[in-house]
Amino acid sequence: MLQSKLSNFIRKEFPKDEEATNAKVLIRAGFVDKTMAGVYSYLPLGLKVIKNIEAIIREEMDAIGAQEILMPALTPKENWEKTGRWGTFDALFKVIARDKKEYALGATHEEVVVPLAQKTIFSYKDLPFGLYQIQTKFRDEPRAKSGLLRGREFIMKDLYSFHADGDDLDKYYAEAIKAYQKIFKRLELDAILVEASGGTFSKYSHEFQVLADSGEDEIVHCNKCHFAQNREINTAKAGDLCPECKAPLSVSNSVEAGNIFKLNTKYSDPFSLKYRDKDGSEKTVIMGCYGMGISRLFGIIAELFHDARGLMWPKSVSPFNVHLIALSGADENETKKVFLRAEGVYKKLSELGIDVLFDDRSEKTAGEKFAESDLIGIPVRLVVSPKTGTKIEFKKRSEPSAKVVDFSFIKKYLMSN
Amino acid sequence: MLQSKLSNFIRKEFPKDEEATNAKVLIRAGFVDKTMAGVYSYLPLGLKVIKNIEAIIREEMDAIGAQEILMPALTPKENWEKTGRWGTFDALFKVIARDKKEYALGATHEEVVVPLAQKTIFSYKDLPFGLYQIQTKFRDEPRAKSGLLRGREFIMKDLYSFHADGDDLDKYYAEAIKAYQKIFKRLELDAILVEASGGTFSKYSHEFQVLADSGEDEIVHCNKCHFAQNREINTAKAGDLCPECKAPLSVSNSVEAGNIFKLNTKYSDPFSLKYRDKDGSEKTVIMGCYGMGISRLFGIIAELFHDARGLMWPKSVSPFNVHLIALSGADENETKKVFLRAEGVYKKLSELGIDVLFDDRSEKTAGEKFAESDLIGIPVRLVVSPKTGTKIEFKKRSEPSAKVVDFSFIKKYLMSN
Repeated sequence: MLQSKLSNFIRKEFPKDEEATNAKVLIRAGFVDKTMAGVYSYLPLGLKVIKNIEAIIREEMDAIGAQEILMPALTPKENWEKTGRWGTFDALFKVIARDKKEYALGATHEEVVVPLAQKTIFSYKDLPFGLYQIQTKFRDEPRAKSGLLRGREFIMKDLYSFHADGDDLDKYYAEAIKAYQKIFKRLELDAILVEASGGTFSKYSHEFQVLADSGEDEIVHCNKCHFAQNREINTAKAGDLCPECKAPLSVSNSVEAGNIFKLNTKYSDPFSLKYRDKDGSEKTVIMGCYGMGISRLFGIIAELFHDARGLMWPKSVSPFNVHLIALSGADENETKKVFLRAEGVYKKLSELGIDVLFDDRSEKTAGEKFAESDLIGIPVRLVVSPKTGTKIEFKKRSEPSAKVVDFSFIKKYLMSN
Repeated sequence: MLQSKLSNFIRKEFPKDEEATNAKVLIRAGFVDKTMAGVYSYLPLGLKVIKNIEAIIREEMDAIGAQEILMPALTPKENWEKTGRWGTFDALFKVIARDKKEYALGATHEEVVVPLAQKTIFSYKDLPFGLYQIQTKFRDEPRAKSGLLRGREFIMKDLYSFHADGDDLDKYYAEAIKAYQKIFKRLELDAILVEASGGTFSKYSHEFQVLADSGEDEIVHCNKCHFAQNREINTAKAGDLCPECKAPLSVSNSVEAGNIFKLNTKYSDPFSLKYRDKDGSEKTVIMGCYGMGISRLFGIIAELFHDARGLMWPKSVSPFNVHLIALSGADENETKKVFLRAEGVYKKLSELGIDVLFDDRSEKTAGEKFAESDLIGIPVRLVVSPKTGTKIEFKKRSEPSAKVVDFSFIKKYLMSN
């Protein structure tokens, strides 16, 4: 798209009312705006990143046969009373309507998905299946100071699976872990599978933790084997020996990017979610649930992929594939010629299906354009200037130096990366 | 996709707790589930239709250069106090958080988008532009009895435009009307542009009204010229003469599918949304707003496109392009042969990029399969049975009779329609 048609939300300075690095860089670069503590608006560039993350998650959920649905944010009080969470889930936002009835804003959706699943489960033949959604969730967090990492309103993918027995749940759970690992790999995030509290069926639940100094979590993990536990269930110090392989343990700060649970019958019981088995007997449905924070992943990536000059998006989620910049010449005539050449490059790249942000603004200086380009953080920057002649300057955001190349080099690079 | 992998939410009977036709047919056919009055879950088939409607709207919004963003549902009380709507907007859902602060659930987003726009408007050079979002909205409707036509939680597209002067707004407003007309055409809906109350800058606002017996609105319209007004501003009876062309007027029930306003400075004033003009003077930004109910459009289409046997989706929004059905044979051997042939058709169509729902369920009878296919309402039904040999039975959902054709006919039909 033409940058002259993109509203510029870039700021000269970091916002003063944010402590979290992710929020600071995302707001300064014009990806998000803070509406209030823990509540953000996604601006054009930010929404593009969010949609790229969503598309990756959707593909991997669809690949394991999960079916996408969309449940409401307004949920009836009686459902939360049935599971006992109306009075115990502190972070539930509650709403009293004109009819004097009370509702909860969905913070998680077991209370909606279980009665819904009941409408399609009759016999063992209807099992197993998974239902997921990508949706806005609400949690009344008392301290929302981590930017996109802990919102009071946030975007989440939640998957719920339904099974005839524990073995089938185990199989699905293992598949879901693989799908999560594929998602993290595509997002270029190293996520460690960590045991955590909260298990119902099994002793522990599992979290996917991404190492980050600013993370609110602390994990005890072994770099030699797969052993990793959340600090909440393991009090070991760095250097203590791994209980599995006896190598020295590490202790690191991290951010939880996903959390999966074997729920057993925790939520099927209160709603009597049952099925008729082959032998005619009635049995309770076994469940699993699998969460992943989408706006949180957006924040994690911003937290990890930036330098002093701005963001450095992984290719898979970058708002554009390429940032093409046209620089003005010594006079109007020269500027016109340069911009015409840049326009030609823009058209050729667009025809190849490459998503280009084309900085066609004539009122900005080269210095301003380069500074904004670094802030936005698209992986490849191309410059057409009076100096480049028929060639184009090519620079990766992650590397310090540029080189002057032919269009054929750029085409080859972008089509194979 | 394989129908055996699609959870079946189809019901034998219409739900007893719904008055509205759209909700009755959508629930029975397994497209939506009612969570409570005015609040629905979108099931896999329903969400596909919603996404198809969204994609059409997104394309036409992008085509007029509007930029997509996503604003929050939780909005600060002080913004609503600034515009005077905290106490007067009866349908606002209000939330009290743990910090004792009050918030409104977004029923419309002028109160968020204006302070947001302020961050990117400095001079006349930053104007005009449009920001839109596709988002879940909340309104505490006292009577939510029209199914998807009037939800307490619903999906909406809202666009806001920002201008230096009224002439520029007029130009954009005319473009937005054309974009809306393109959207309705693609949805196969006849929407009448109707004058209604609520104008600020101009005398009237404009609504797009779709004729429907069950509509809550009533419009006075001329079938000869373009004259059309909402009953709220015109008390004429059917047969009265059109004030513009003197032809007899019609009076019809209708559903409002879109509503557009020239806001002038109604919302810029309370937030002091100003820009610096060419001559250095400070001026107030002129605004327009353009709403379109996405879940309501879903309901309108269901209301208008169905018969006694079920839904009849327009091609542009149908959850699948084709419903392919394999029928069992006299014995297992014959059934196996038929299903293999059907699988071949499924693969060939999928390779052509055609989105096929393949009824590969062996436990259902032909009668059950046909009844469910009619309920779901995909425009084209293909049947592979012991009787069809190397050919395929082809039937349009909108026509009573089927014919037996070659694959080449089907390919040609689907690729050109």
